[in-house]
Amino acid sequence: MVSAKMYELGTKKSTIRTIFEFGRKRVAEVGEENLFDFSLGNPNVPTPDFVRDAAIEILKTYEPSAVHGYTVAPGNLNVRNTLAKSINERFATSFAGKNIFITSGAAAAITICFKALAEPGDEFITFAPYFPEYKIFVESVGAQLKVVKPRPEDWQIDFDDFQKLLSPKTKAIIINSPNNPSGAVYSAETIKRLTEILKNCGQEIFLICDEPYRELAYGVEVPWVTNYYKNTLVCYSYSKSFSLPGERIGYIVVPDEVADFDKVFGSVAGAARVLTHVNAPSLWQLVIAKCAGKAVDITPYERNGKLLYNGLIAAGFECVKPQGAFYLFPKALEADDYAFCERAKKYDLLLVPGADFGAPGYFRAAYCIKQETIERSLPLFKKLAAEYRG
Amino acid sequence: MVSAKMYELGTKKSTIRTIFEFGRKRVAEVGEENLFDFSLGNPNVPTPDFVRDAAIEILKTYEPSAVHGYTVAPGNLNVRNTLAKSINERFATSFAGKNIFITSGAAAAITICFKALAEPGDEFITFAPYFPEYKIFVESVGAQLKVVKPRPEDWQIDFDDFQKLLSPKTKAIIINSPNNPSGAVYSAETIKRLTEILKNCGQEIFLICDEPYRELAYGVEVPWVTNYYKNTLVCYSYSKSFSLPGERIGYIVVPDEVADFDKVFGSVAGAARVLTHVNAPSLWQLVIAKCAGKAVDITPYERNGKLLYNGLIAAGFECVKPQGAFYLFPKALEADDYAFCERAKKYDLLLVPGADFGAPGYFRAAYCIKQETIERSLPLFKKLAAEYRG
Repeated sequence: MVSAKMYELGTKKSTIRTIFEFGRKRVAEVGEENLFDFSLGNPNVPTPDFVRDAAIEILKTYEPSAVHGYTVAPGNLNVRNTLAKSINERFATSFAGKNIFITSGAAAAITICFKALAEPGDEFITFAPYFPEYKIFVESVGAQLKVVKPRPEDWQIDFDDFQKLLSPKTKAIIINSPNNPSGAVYSAETIKRLTEILKNCGQEIFLICDEPYRELAYGVEVPWVTNYYKNTLVCYSYSKSFSLPGERIGYIVVPDEVADFDKVFGSVAGAARVLTHVNAPSLWQLVIAKCAGKAVDITPYERNGKLLYNGLIAAGFECVKPQGAFYLFPKALEADDYAFCERAKKYDLLLVPGADFGAPGYFRAAYCIKQETIERSLPLFKKLAAEYRG
Repeated sequence: MVSAKMYELGTKKSTIRTIFEFGRKRVAEVGEENLFDFSLGNPNVPTPDFVRDAAIEILKTYEPSAVHGYTVAPGNLNVRNTLAKSINERFATSFAGKNIFITSGAAAAITICFKALAEPGDEFITFAPYFPEYKIFVESVGAQLKVVKPRPEDWQIDFDDFQKLLSPKTKAIIINSPNNPSGAVYSAETIKRLTEILKNCGQEIFLICDEPYRELAYGVEVPWVTNYYKNTLVCYSYSKSFSLPGERIGYIVVPDEVADFDKVFGSVAGAARVLTHVNAPSLWQLVIAKCAGKAVDITPYERNGKLLYNGLIAAGFECVKPQGAFYLFPKALEADDYAFCERAKKYDLLLVPGADFGAPGYFRAAYCIKQETIERSLPLFKKLAAEYRG
């Protein structure tokens, strides 16, 4: 009676979902303050006041139809002009409103790009560790996802493995920097080497940059990739920077320089249409224009990241230093990361196995939580590590 | 380089789009007040104050994370409970929150249903005149749309033709009442006869009710279809009732009684996931809960409908009396409705050919515009009709 595939996608429990349900049960038993939940990527820094104030001002002073009416599919042109200007000021680019397609968040943005580009038989390549929904979204548009093996020493790119996967079937490369789950930021050197390979591979390949964590970088530069490679599509979201994940607002940048701009932008519009993203929520379009370029305070994340990193190192864990996003991706203390995360539950430490992100033997710890929770978790991580030393 | 299908869907100009562009050109030439644009279905009654006030109160008084955080995919459970209660009070049903899946508007709601149900080779049936995006959305999930021929005397259902199209391949029937573009409301008798056929056809067929215009009915009852047939999915949107089309908020009702509730609800969740509707915009979820069941003032539409109907009848047009939505669907004054609408442009009357909705020989006139515009258009409709009388 129903689509077997949709049923599977709607009901198969993900590891994170299973951890979440375990967490709810434990909270009922031991209390919220005694559960150390590092499993969820929900921003815990509150939405900035300037965002709320902008929304209230718009609701109070604009004509309702100007706030709540349909916008054209790519979004309000004034908003798109403002966003383009703000990007140009930050990254020395020269975009106009016509290069921006406003979307209902980053999941929509990347999937719209996948669907706009994918033809039967196409392959998309990404790099482990990676956001597991990539596989679902790429397969949903009829293409295949190929995954380059991880490079655990710094979570940059394993170029040898990447070059093995490149083929005439490759339609696009997906990168996610700052990265979920590794917290790595691809260096200018990494981006240069990646884009040099693409320029010299003898075929037109798109580079899709999934950048919801762009603003969350700690003392390192996040290279702006359209400045390195012409066939680049940038997907952005305000979910993390403005702590608005529930409102679903972001955008795609389609530079003039991409191979056949009109075709790509037209296909983006067609993909948004059949994915039934009629337009991105109209109030939030106006809000992001009012708040374009405003700085957000990332010090709570930076402080949490350092605290957790130092604590884990002191407890004997191996971990690459956090550079961005709000995740650490340390090595598990046994080869089987599922077994390790199970063991951590004894101490009410909720961690996500790295195998879920295509990097077995590691685990993800999200530090977008209360500082106090991290402080109180550190002795537990020590006890957990002590178990392994016997 | 791109998906040929997405490019076509994103760039092929619809008739309405072509009319819209002609309209913008004419406005520049003759001024806004001298263009009589009956082509667009944008609600012109402003968003009710209670909706704006609810949004402002939520923004001012709730914790930001409770407003802007991710919700679970089907939506905030408190909101779903409130919506279910409100539906129960109006329609003597007994839904709970678990029967509601909140969506980003009605386009998402219906397409999520199509994708949740469609298996290869499936057919969906709808009734002319019909919303043309149905064809795009049904084909995008890999199924085929079959269209029952129109019944111009009252725009109810041509049951003989319907029964010819029913087949073992039929997965679901799509109805849209109050109807875009005809303005008809399916009577209790029509719904009874339709559902009796489905009950006795020897197979499980779903009935998908697309009801964005439910609140816009003028002195007639709009039957609540789950009370007639168990395999009914109701798709609702606040776009028209609360004049919020840009915000993308609506819901699907999945009754306990549908054939295998768990499978249908699970597949709805899977379809929402791959269509990248992570959750419906979270602020608007809270707003619709606060405003559930509040009455909206539809008298401006009712007044406009009567005015235009009486004017067209007086000018010699044939037209079914308006019962709902904000459209009239009169007979064109020549067999070729495209030629007729072209001729109407001479008087700066912008009308949409009925062939676009699967009913050639008719035209759609949307009356969700200023009353004064309608008043001033009536002499022009008279002149247009006079041309045809020679």
